[in-house]
Amino acid sequence: MRLSRLLFATLREAPKEAETASHRLMLRASLVRQVAAGIYEWLPLGWRVARKVAAIVREEMDRAGAQEVLLPQLMPKEWWEETGRWGAYGKELMRITDRHERQYALGPTHEEAVTDMVRATARTYRKLPVTLYQIQTKFRDEIRPRFGVMRAREFTMKDAYSFDANDAGAAASYEAMRKAYVAIFDRIGLEYRMVDADSGLIGGTSSQEFMVLAKSGEAEIAVCDGCDYAANLEKAEPGAPGKAGPAAAPAFERVDTPNTKSAKAVAKLLGKDPSEVSKMMFYRAGDRLVAAMVRGDHEIHEVKLARAVGADEVFLASPDEVVAKTGLPLGFMGPVGMKDVTLVADRDLMAMPAIVTGANEKDAHLVNVVPGRDFTPATVASIRSVKAGDRCPSCGGTLSLIRGIEVGHIFRLGTKYSQAMGCVFLDEAGKEREAIMGCYGIGVTRIVAAAIEEAHDEKGIVWPEPIAPWQVLVLPLGAEPEITKAAEGLYESLTAAGLETMIDDREETPGVKFADADLMGMPWQVIVGKTFLKEGLVELKRRGSKESDRVPPSEVASRFAAFRQGAAE
Amino acid sequence: MRLSRLLFATLREAPKEAETASHRLMLRASLVRQVAAGIYEWLPLGWRVARKVAAIVREEMDRAGAQEVLLPQLMPKEWWEETGRWGAYGKELMRITDRHERQYALGPTHEEAVTDMVRATARTYRKLPVTLYQIQTKFRDEIRPRFGVMRAREFTMKDAYSFDANDAGAAASYEAMRKAYVAIFDRIGLEYRMVDADSGLIGGTSSQEFMVLAKSGEAEIAVCDGCDYAANLEKAEPGAPGKAGPAAAPAFERVDTPNTKSAKAVAKLLGKDPSEVSKMMFYRAGDRLVAAMVRGDHEIHEVKLARAVGADEVFLASPDEVVAKTGLPLGFMGPVGMKDVTLVADRDLMAMPAIVTGANEKDAHLVNVVPGRDFTPATVASIRSVKAGDRCPSCGGTLSLIRGIEVGHIFRLGTKYSQAMGCVFLDEAGKEREAIMGCYGIGVTRIVAAAIEEAHDEKGIVWPEPIAPWQVLVLPLGAEPEITKAAEGLYESLTAAGLETMIDDREETPGVKFADADLMGMPWQVIVGKTFLKEGLVELKRRGSKESDRVPPSEVASRFAAFRQGAAE
Repeated sequence: MRLSRLLFATLREAPKEAETASHRLMLRASLVRQVAAGIYEWLPLGWRVARKVAAIVREEMDRAGAQEVLLPQLMPKEWWEETGRWGAYGKELMRITDRHERQYALGPTHEEAVTDMVRATARTYRKLPVTLYQIQTKFRDEIRPRFGVMRAREFTMKDAYSFDANDAGAAASYEAMRKAYVAIFDRIGLEYRMVDADSGLIGGTSSQEFMVLAKSGEAEIAVCDGCDYAANLEKAEPGAPGKAGPAAAPAFERVDTPNTKSAKAVAKLLGKDPSEVSKMMFYRAGDRLVAAMVRGDHEIHEVKLARAVGADEVFLASPDEVVAKTGLPLGFMGPVGMKDVTLVADRDLMAMPAIVTGANEKDAHLVNVVPGRDFTPATVASIRSVKAGDRCPSCGGTLSLIRGIEVGHIFRLGTKYSQAMGCVFLDEAGKEREAIMGCYGIGVTRIVAAAIEEAHDEKGIVWPEPIAPWQVLVLPLGAEPEITKAAEGLYESLTAAGLETMIDDREETPGVKFADADLMGMPWQVIVGKTFLKEGLVELKRRGSKESDRVPPSEVASRFAAFRQGAAE
Repeated sequence: MRLSRLLFATLREAPKEAETASHRLMLRASLVRQVAAGIYEWLPLGWRVARKVAAIVREEMDRAGAQEVLLPQLMPKEWWEETGRWGAYGKELMRITDRHERQYALGPTHEEAVTDMVRATARTYRKLPVTLYQIQTKFRDEIRPRFGVMRAREFTMKDAYSFDANDAGAAASYEAMRKAYVAIFDRIGLEYRMVDADSGLIGGTSSQEFMVLAKSGEAEIAVCDGCDYAANLEKAEPGAPGKAGPAAAPAFERVDTPNTKSAKAVAKLLGKDPSEVSKMMFYRAGDRLVAAMVRGDHEIHEVKLARAVGADEVFLASPDEVVAKTGLPLGFMGPVGMKDVTLVADRDLMAMPAIVTGANEKDAHLVNVVPGRDFTPATVASIRSVKAGDRCPSCGGTLSLIRGIEVGHIFRLGTKYSQAMGCVFLDEAGKEREAIMGCYGIGVTRIVAAAIEEAHDEKGIVWPEPIAPWQVLVLPLGAEPEITKAAEGLYESLTAAGLETMIDDREETPGVKFADADLMGMPWQVIVGKTFLKEGLVELKRRGSKESDRVPPSEVASRFAAFRQGAAE
């Protein structure tokens, strides 16, 4: 490819609204352009990278035995009513009405569509297992699209869905996809972690996320310094607390704490550590009022709390609601003697020998309250967020918190959709059963951004070779005919040797050419300039490295062959 | 691939609503399923074919120097207002409103989007020419979706757009695409005609359609039996009429034609041929009233008439309107002495030595009216439809009318969109100029249907090899271990030899296996059955042929190599 023919317009400065490195560089290198909030058009350079990602995904999906299909982007409202998501999905679901006033969902995900396909075609156990996938544009009307293509409203995804006749099969289908994902992210050349994720009510380690580590990542992950434990914050559990000694504490007693409500303030007033004071918050879970307790140095995690009380979601209760229901003074409530609420306490709090709690009386707290002796929660569970320094639940090592970009997610769905939509098959005994499903997503366009977050410098992008738009950029510097001739010769011979080669054949200064070369990030630069005129040598430079090799033009192709051989070994 | 693993459900009978062979066979062979009117989901077998078509299209686009991009499917209303198409496109354009009440067009075509991309990136002549393409789902809310994926509301298209700095460049870009299209349709193995099409106000042979010939085609084409002239009915011109002799006819005279209005009835009454009587129809073109005249044996073609009067469109005028404007009696109007209307006459009518026309008086006609002597039209042009038996405009041979399926369309747009959207560049002199555009479409999913229309028999599909889902289907017939072993061995060795091979490893009767094999249409069948048990030979059968070869399994791969060699030569 000749750079003079490529449609692009690099920018020296990135638009102000670009918040992350990948967003800035994708705009500056002319990979994408924004056309509306969260909607992008992909220019040739960017789309070529996205297509390379898609090709790797497709190859590994095929290798894993998944079958490619194309599900409709316009999905009848009726399907979404069968699963209840027409109502539940909210404003993120884009809806469209046709000329006959029929309504359709504009696909944000395709569980309904694929379940419809399978219920119509796989009526007996002989047709199972089957894993289907597609690579397609998805639409989600995000309330806050941001970070460029990272959180867009229109984006390209690979989504796959497995259907099995039994649990062992479902586990095998999940495992095949997990392996395929590992192969995909390894091949693309990303630094990633496989992270345990919350799987809602299904339980087990049946949901994992693939996270590319990046400071700008939207998701926080807990990772262990001693083993390969990694989990997102909804799933991460701190290691079990040490057991409290026998309850040798004296009986609790009331102390005055005038106008002192927060755990931190109470701790200060009483000369205690915040970990020795309890913190209580109130939530609505369906029609129940839930009082959730954690140590003063911990934070409640609402997803974990919801899981602990068996609810889909919990909502912070309003102060008025809490006072009306309990009749107790705000800021001084405690578990001792509390009625008409569901009390849920964190495991770490329960492990304390004694704590300070509210006295259910204005301006007063109780000290020497012994969990399990002086109050008994309805539920004890880990409902707090992990924090840096927590113990690893797997090896006892130390957890730290890092940020990541979710580029893949694999998930066991069970029979949620097959039950709702009647996706049943006849088993060997002729009995009707629901197919057991899994779903598996990869953000194809998001990976382009994640790869840039991971590999860039102040000058621009440094593409991993497997997804680089072109591997080699030949840079003729100078208008001398010898330079043009040598550069064109190299362009032809490298292309003929099977290297994806681009030549910067524009009439531009070396400064402009280098700036664009570094910005666009092709992994190799072959520079034909003064050194060639003087010594007959060209420079071979790895993008991102300061060093370069000088070699005669005739040796460039074999040098690349050796590099690549080395890389493959 | 093992057929036991493929997700499919063949049907012995096609749903009643399927009107054409391709629609019936696509449903029966489980290539697609309908999910709503004009909306289809693609199962693995069908999507594999569509992907093969797309791969050929992509290769030839790349070879022609076009650059692949991805334009958004959600396009801001503002773009479509710039070109006036937000209003003009009508109900076929699907529109969507987001959570912030902003409106978008759901892409039926992408002139607006691509023009926006180019106006932002190609600001100087150095960036031109450029041809961009994408392969993407399109949405058109057809009033009457039909023939399966042939006229669907959601379908896959390749659309390309060229931008040039001058007319010579635009012609070269058009020619490059024309050549690429020829290469694509040749490679796919379709029988097609390249057909001159109407290009609206741009003129010249700057619009061509690629038509696959099929009885079920929606479009009629005029083709010559003597040369390669072919044109759609909007474009086709009959050969020029012979010149009429000198006007030796006597003066016209009035004859009584009581209650006789139609040209045919008048001809009968007066003992003339219908070709000797004129037919006059009235149209509105903007605020003009147009009287269009053709011979009684010809039909007015409204698109040609519109072109002749320089209007985008003409509309049949109501009788009331005509009477009010002319004050003349319906059914007896004629050109002699007619006022206040724009008179347009067909070329063939003008070539008649004399004709019969209305007398502009109730129950009367004029005979011996000499065109050019007794009346002078404002415009003379070919405004009639061609019909079978007309002379070819190119060689004087005979035209016939055939039906076809439009699978590709190439079109010179001029500056229509670049002007409307300000897609300008600076030329060598630093002067701002509008880019000259072309657009080039291929119906990827429609080609799948067109290929089936062209190649099928009563048993099912007969795929052209280049787009067959798999080239070879190995059919083990019988449960004997020798058969299974030989068939599995062939499956492995043919796959290893680079042939896309499927094995029907299901426990089904030979009848079911043959029926599905013929329905799905893989080009080659390798049958391992009784002949193998008795004589150690397998049968090689070309789908669609009655003959088969018997060969030892060890020779099958080399036999295919020989076939393919032969085919390539």
